[in-house]
Amino acid sequence: MMMSENKKVVLAYSGGLDTSVIIPWLKEKYDYDVIAVCVNVGQGDELEGIEEKALKSGASKVYVEDVVEEFVTNYIFPTLKAGAIYEDKYLLGTSFARPLIAKKLVDIALAEGAEAICHGATGKGNDQVRFELAIKALAPELKVIAPWREWEFKSREDEIEYAQKKGIPVPVTKEKPYSMDRNLWHLSHEGGDLEDPWNEPKDDLYMMIVPPTQAPDEPEYVEIDFKEGIPYKVNGVEYGPVELIKVLNEIAGRNGVGIADIVENRLVGMKSRGVYETPAGTVLYIAHRELERLTLDKQTMRFKDMVAHKYAELVYDGMWFTTLREALDAFVDVTQKNVTGTVRLKLYKGSCTPAGAKSPYSLYSQEFATFGEDQVYNQKDAEGFINIFGLPLKIRALMEKGKAK
Amino acid sequence: MMMSENKKVVLAYSGGLDTSVIIPWLKEKYDYDVIAVCVNVGQGDELEGIEEKALKSGASKVYVEDVVEEFVTNYIFPTLKAGAIYEDKYLLGTSFARPLIAKKLVDIALAEGAEAICHGATGKGNDQVRFELAIKALAPELKVIAPWREWEFKSREDEIEYAQKKGIPVPVTKEKPYSMDRNLWHLSHEGGDLEDPWNEPKDDLYMMIVPPTQAPDEPEYVEIDFKEGIPYKVNGVEYGPVELIKVLNEIAGRNGVGIADIVENRLVGMKSRGVYETPAGTVLYIAHRELERLTLDKQTMRFKDMVAHKYAELVYDGMWFTTLREALDAFVDVTQKNVTGTVRLKLYKGSCTPAGAKSPYSLYSQEFATFGEDQVYNQKDAEGFINIFGLPLKIRALMEKGKAK
Amino acid sequence: MMMSENKKVVLAYSGGLDTSVIIPWLKEKYDYDVIAVCVNVGQGDELEGIEEKALKSGASKVYVEDVVEEFVTNYIFPTLKAGAIYEDKYLLGTSFARPLIAKKLVDIALAEGAEAICHGATGKGNDQVRFELAIKALAPELKVIAPWREWEFKSREDEIEYAQKKGIPVPVTKEKPYSMDRNLWHLSHEGGDLEDPWNEPKDDLYMMIVPPTQAPDEPEYVEIDFKEGIPYKVNGVEYGPVELIKVLNEIAGRNGVGIADIVENRLVGMKSRGVYETPAGTVLYIAHRELERLTLDKQTMRFKDMVAHKYAELVYDGMWFTTLREALDAFVDVTQKNVTGTVRLKLYKGSCTPAGAKSPYSLYSQEFATFGEDQVYNQKDAEGFINIFGLPLKIRALMEKGKAK
Amino acid sequence: MMMSENKKVVLAYSGGLDTSVIIPWLKEKYDYDVIAVCVNVGQGDELEGIEEKALKSGASKVYVEDVVEEFVTNYIFPTLKAGAIYEDKYLLGTSFARPLIAKKLVDIALAEGAEAICHGATGKGNDQVRFELAIKALAPELKVIAPWREWEFKSREDEIEYAQKKGIPVPVTKEKPYSMDRNLWHLSHEGGDLEDPWNEPKDDLYMMIVPPTQAPDEPEYVEIDFKEGIPYKVNGVEYGPVELIKVLNEIAGRNGVGIADIVENRLVGMKSRGVYETPAGTVLYIAHRELERLTLDKQTMRFKDMVAHKYAELVYDGMWFTTLREALDAFVDVTQKNVTGTVRLKLYKGSCTPAGAKSPYSLYSQEFATFGEDQVYNQKDAEGFINIFGLPLKIRALMEKGKAK
Repeated sequence: MMMSENKKVVLAYSGGLDTSVIIPWLKEKYDYDVIAVCVNVGQGDELEGIEEKALKSGASKVYVEDVVEEFVTNYIFPTLKAGAIYEDKYLLGTSFARPLIAKKLVDIALAEGAEAICHGATGKGNDQVRFELAIKALAPELKVIAPWREWEFKSREDEIEYAQKKGIPVPVTKEKPYSMDRNLWHLSHEGGDLEDPWNEPKDDLYMMIVPPTQAPDEPEYVEIDFKEGIPYKVNGVEYGPVELIKVLNEIAGRNGVGIADIVENRLVGMKSRGVYETPAGTVLYIAHRELERLTLDKQTMRFKDMVAHKYAELVYDGMWFTTLREALDAFVDVTQKNVTGTVRLKLYKGSCTPAGAKSPYSLYSQEFATFGEDQVYNQKDAEGFINIFGLPLKIRALMEKGKAK
Repeated sequence: MMMSENKKVVLAYSGGLDTSVIIPWLKEKYDYDVIAVCVNVGQGDELEGIEEKALKSGASKVYVEDVVEEFVTNYIFPTLKAGAIYEDKYLLGTSFARPLIAKKLVDIALAEGAEAICHGATGKGNDQVRFELAIKALAPELKVIAPWREWEFKSREDEIEYAQKKGIPVPVTKEKPYSMDRNLWHLSHEGGDLEDPWNEPKDDLYMMIVPPTQAPDEPEYVEIDFKEGIPYKVNGVEYGPVELIKVLNEIAGRNGVGIADIVENRLVGMKSRGVYETPAGTVLYIAHRELERLTLDKQTMRFKDMVAHKYAELVYDGMWFTTLREALDAFVDVTQKNVTGTVRLKLYKGSCTPAGAKSPYSLYSQEFATFGEDQVYNQKDAEGFINIFGLPLKIRALMEKGKAK
Repeated sequence: MMMSENKKVVLAYSGGLDTSVIIPWLKEKYDYDVIAVCVNVGQGDELEGIEEKALKSGASKVYVEDVVEEFVTNYIFPTLKAGAIYEDKYLLGTSFARPLIAKKLVDIALAEGAEAICHGATGKGNDQVRFELAIKALAPELKVIAPWREWEFKSREDEIEYAQKKGIPVPVTKEKPYSMDRNLWHLSHEGGDLEDPWNEPKDDLYMMIVPPTQAPDEPEYVEIDFKEGIPYKVNGVEYGPVELIKVLNEIAGRNGVGIADIVENRLVGMKSRGVYETPAGTVLYIAHRELERLTLDKQTMRFKDMVAHKYAELVYDGMWFTTLREALDAFVDVTQKNVTGTVRLKLYKGSCTPAGAKSPYSLYSQEFATFGEDQVYNQKDAEGFINIFGLPLKIRALMEKGKAK
Repeated sequence: MMMSENKKVVLAYSGGLDTSVIIPWLKEKYDYDVIAVCVNVGQGDELEGIEEKALKSGASKVYVEDVVEEFVTNYIFPTLKAGAIYEDKYLLGTSFARPLIAKKLVDIALAEGAEAICHGATGKGNDQVRFELAIKALAPELKVIAPWREWEFKSREDEIEYAQKKGIPVPVTKEKPYSMDRNLWHLSHEGGDLEDPWNEPKDDLYMMIVPPTQAPDEPEYVEIDFKEGIPYKVNGVEYGPVELIKVLNEIAGRNGVGIADIVENRLVGMKSRGVYETPAGTVLYIAHRELERLTLDKQTMRFKDMVAHKYAELVYDGMWFTTLREALDAFVDVTQKNVTGTVRLKLYKGSCTPAGAKSPYSLYSQEFATFGEDQVYNQKDAEGFINIFGLPLKIRALMEKGKAK
């Protein structure tokens, strides 16, 4: 490659049609040298031959960055510990991948002295916001280019025509019915017939999960061990973070567990419909919550639920690199000190049900809860408790009858 | 019945051993005439012959009150509209029955000129609080007697011996392994081997629901219509409130849907483990929520989620007759104006999955959400949105680099 | 006025330089007939001669709408009842005037068959959002024109030059050091030396309020009566809503009461510094809150505080015409049923201190609170209460010592 | 002192009538050796001669523990950083002293091998709960004795008579009209004519603060420097934590600043009326908040406000030694990293007004907020922002007009 005097742009490159077309477009429109960066967050075989493909499309340099372990350790696990779920259902699989990808783009842009970062996210979705907020937070001086918001192509056909004109290879994949995003944690589907929320997703949509009706006829039990809120064993065997998720993806996937079908509120003001496959994630969230039921006291659990809501919003909205997210993490970490123990789950044709939990730090105590006598709880105390707990109700009632004297 | 000069007590009477024994105990200890009141909230055949049983046990008068419709209309449906779930799982079946029962006890106590109300709830549970708070709110001048907090019996055997001594009939039922509470909405199980949270509930525990593994091999679809948040049709057929729940109990029950197994935080400071069967309730909550996803805007849904949490706490804690509950109802009612439409659900071996939703008031719009052009959403707006939405992140980043000049 | 074939625009007209210049600019740039609308929310003598001024500037038609009473009844009082304060200090004087003004603009635009609405708010502030959100909510089909976001003028001088070129009268007022907004409820100041938050506002800034150091040396007491959360008497004299605020503006103003100096977070992502004069408002908020302390139970007050925060955000952000605001109003109205009574306040050199409160619905009861004996509260109950309220702490402590067996 | 075979009790001893009488009462009723512990949290000259007084009253041993610095560093400052205020007014002066005192009592009880701890708090107040919850959390095995809940004395006269019978010295202080609690941070007044909330507190009530009308006629300015949320300089002079509060007590006190008069909701279900003097505290809270306005972003400030509410409730309710309080502290600490800078306040006849704030980490930027051009904020972005921010309102409006197709 020749020395170039051109300014540089770092492109979030996936190897698909869109980002392939963006390379010549950037060169033509902005006269940039294009540095293609493919960040591996576990999207799988999509990565094969990607370097060659990028160069053929005109990239001046290619990076392929494997960040899967960082993804699990610094993005997935903190969010799991927080218990953050967007609108009760979505386990944030795409949401927290974006800031990590953006961080890598920024690192390379700064190392390469690039002037801009370019991403292929559309102008109607959340991902543009997540990419750009991360960039603003990490390197506010960098320019952002979002071709979908400015270029002239209206359709896949426009793009293919342009690619052919520019002599770049067009990925041979035929147009997919759905728009998808895949990584280690999840796979999302949007578009096509899903756009009518009256349509049930079809069974052949799923790629990580067996449709529940085709799952085995016998329940499968799985045991997960956590230490301070972090899962580290499956069925008694210790795994590293990435491996643990792969193992659980396999187990949950074959039992039909982990599908979420949701009409969600996008950050950009509209509702959209997505179907998500998050097999390991679903099992881990349920298991983690069960362990918290044993080990967190009521008031901590209540407040943590509010934290979880806010955390989910921050992650969904692309507010990863913020003081508030860091402060919430600090809160969560204190709550997790005793979230250590074992949870057993029953997986059966799409359902995942707790089937036992235990912890050396359990606050559940059989002897307190049963009806007989014990030394800790004196039933006579209840009368005093009720009288004082109910005093405001009594005072109001007395006031209302005759205005309390 | 002879005229009596004695003071009167109104007893919440169920026909079981405990409340049967309470009758002679109240007469002996307090010299009261005992008015036994059995409030029918849908507990089913437990009510047969109950009047005779009470009289044989020494009651001076018996009331059997059917409040099932009031239960659904004024207690279940408002809670459903609020979306209130205690600790993510418990649909409050016992919780909201107690204030209604207490209301009836109070009505009768006032009409009969009774001095006190007596209930058979234990001193370690939530129900004593729920009964007594309702009484404080409705008739603070009434005395409350809770035999379990004051009498000398320590065991079932003690009670039976006392009953025999007093010559009252002992219900022949053998001791059940679990403590249960049943009404139209749910059935709860506590105690026995459930007290160890590491034990999975056994399949023969369930009485309203077929164990998931024994449910039919084919999914069953059900469609529910709502009007302003209230369900009124199942599979296109209109039902009254009570009938609708019965129909859904049957449909959900035969598909294994509606089991919740939870270690929960009791109001009285300890954790306990309960298993709940709420077949219709589970289906209705899921359906209602799906319809809200279409018809509520994001900020209303967010705030309503907080309202739902508080509502659940109030109901669980027995705070039904309070200003706050009434004020939350007023909030909820405004949000429900457009929660009208149809939800289709797939029931399959224990799982209940949304399989389509539609509403004339849907805020989801296919044309806004898809990627192409439309008149309402201009992709170029996204840039301005992101720049302003992300401005605080940019300002902070600039401040940090060189302290923002 | 001649019949015109031109399309029409409705302009929010104030008579100041900006909106005067906008008239010829709209005609020139868009070829519109300009309908100038001046909405009177109590801005006072700024309104004199405004009709003539608008016509001289080229308006084809002028409306002057007096909405002061509607402003108080439907905007100020609901917000007061909610207790909504933005960031602890700002009583929302400008914020809730904007949706009302926009509503009038929309009404006239629809009646006149206008195509667009034009406002003179800048592109960096909150008011543009408030105007435009109200228009979107009420008449989404109307076009919005915001000259400050598109025209070429960079300074006051540019505008004056343009006015002179177009032959329209230039308001003779010399450039004010501060940007102001005034209505019945408040007066805001921004800009000038206030832009450095290290600068204290100068005494000569204030127009509704005497600087505290120049206020009388003797405290002045004022008594305010509320009925269901609405103030209706001052010092025992009944007033209509508008008059009541005028009277209190006078009383509070002469005692230096009602100044708020705040660095606030604008909706558009930046912080700004404003100084607000809200004399009557300050007194009313304090009085209303004092009455709530007597008449609301703890849990209602707690939840209402959250409602107040959200309400303030909605109002500040221009989200007046939304389901959530209406639902919050419904909540608030239930809480206000007993907020009836009298509050006495001491005004003294800038401070406003409660000096007595009473209500026929007071939940404060002297006999419950004092230390001696009474029939309602039994000190022995406290032991039971503490034992159960503290049970979670005890359980945790026991678990930690030896893992609670 | 003779070796004793008796069991021991540790008494929270103040030297006043109540705790003096408790000593012989404990010996008589429980046959305990009484270890009197006086914990110095800055209550001032009440401590003189206290050791001798305790021994004369029959204590077998006396501890006087000076914990003032620990009080400020570990209790006052974390609460200040959290911004915790109970019901908008009460700065928690008594509330957070109780757990610290209890901690010292527990330490001594464990060191001495005592069986029980005794406190002199009444059965109607909050302090009994605070003492006992701390004891439960720190040493659940210790017994608690609360004489006011069990002894027979009904009045001060009863106590004096008993003291004389037992031959112990009766403190010569005449009965005070108010019940008071004093420490470095505050002084509280309850009882007497304050029990009628219609009565204004009299000027001669105040002991730390000059009544506002008697304060100097000239405003006094004070500058306070904070580092990561902790105050460390007054008027440019660096002070240790205890000294800093003393200096500010003096400055604020002489200017009439720091009085709060509140009808509050006690934990034990009733409302009570208290008047608090918290001179330094008032100034510090205002200053700290002003600095946060400059240095916290909007969303962090919003969430921290919720944290502050919960923190205040925990402290008020005696829940100091809990996981939740620790987790909230961790949250707060992250938010305080940039809360560094200087605040200038104007103190004048009872009011404390911000008069300037600056910080090297300020997120307020003059150039962003002013109306002219700048590089960071492009006014044209506002249009896109408004269109997307307002999209939900527009979608709803379109749906309502013709049901959005």
